[in-house]
Amino acid sequence: MTAELKFIGHIETPYKDPSECPRNISLDGPQCTIILDPDYHEGLTSLEVGQHILVLYWFENTDRSRMLQRPGGRPTGDLRGTFALRSPHRPNPIAAAVLPIAEIGEGRITVYGLDCCNGTKLLDIKPAIHLEKPTE
Amino acid sequence: MTAELKFIGHIETPYKDPSECPRNISLDGPQCTIILDPDYHEGLTSLEVGQHILVLYWFENTDRSRMLQRPGGRPTGDLRGTFALRSPHRPNPIAAAVLPIAEIGEGRITVYGLDCCNGTKLLDIKPAIHLEKPTE
Repeated sequence: MTAELKFIGHIETPYKDPSECPRNISLDGPQCTIILDPDYHEGLTSLEVGQHILVLYWFENTDRSRMLQRPGGRPTGDLRGTFALRSPHRPNPIAAAVLPIAEIGEGRITVYGLDCCNGTKLLDIKPAIHLEKPTE
Repeated sequence: MTAELKFIGHIETPYKDPSECPRNISLDGPQCTIILDPDYHEGLTSLEVGQHILVLYWFENTDRSRMLQRPGGRPTGDLRGTFALRSPHRPNPIAAAVLPIAEIGEGRITVYGLDCCNGTKLLDIKPAIHLEKPTE
């Protein structure tokens, strides 16, 4: 059973190749721009600078069958379960990053420190929720 | 341009119909069970009770073209951009929830307070990261 994703835009980053990408997002990283295709510009209405968003994007050319792997693709060391890692090699290679909005323009959002290659396909943006167990 | 998702399991919740589902996740909500299909059981290796996971799942029967909508599907009030809401009506109806693992069994994870219908299709599980700007 499957479902189809639509790419709704792309992400501009300084990284041309996967080997240049950092291993995770970092709020001190370089400027990145999330660019929506024209059909989706209106969907950015009501987002605000400073608000934390969850950005979902698509890792290409990954191994979607690997269930055990080593963190960071190291050649030796303990194997871990794919769902215990944030590796791009997973059944559905959807990446998720929570970041504050630095700037909003027509059909575009500026953030800092995404970990993906230039041209990465965008899937979704939604307000981030950080739930903590209420203090009793 | 599109990409294909594979459903890797499903979620058991007390909610039979979308009208019964709460509007968002709540850590005080009822017990829910995330059940992986057999091909994916090994991917749970190394996850631990108490660890926060990001669970991605698929909302069915949604309007994937709506770019402006009212929060909570209310009939009146201000329209907001789809990407400023967590509504299931979005171009790629992927839901995201961050929750602690309450229990782990063979091919299954117990959590509390998911917001989706019984039988919802599972897409991914990964360790949650909460990044905050480092204090200077």
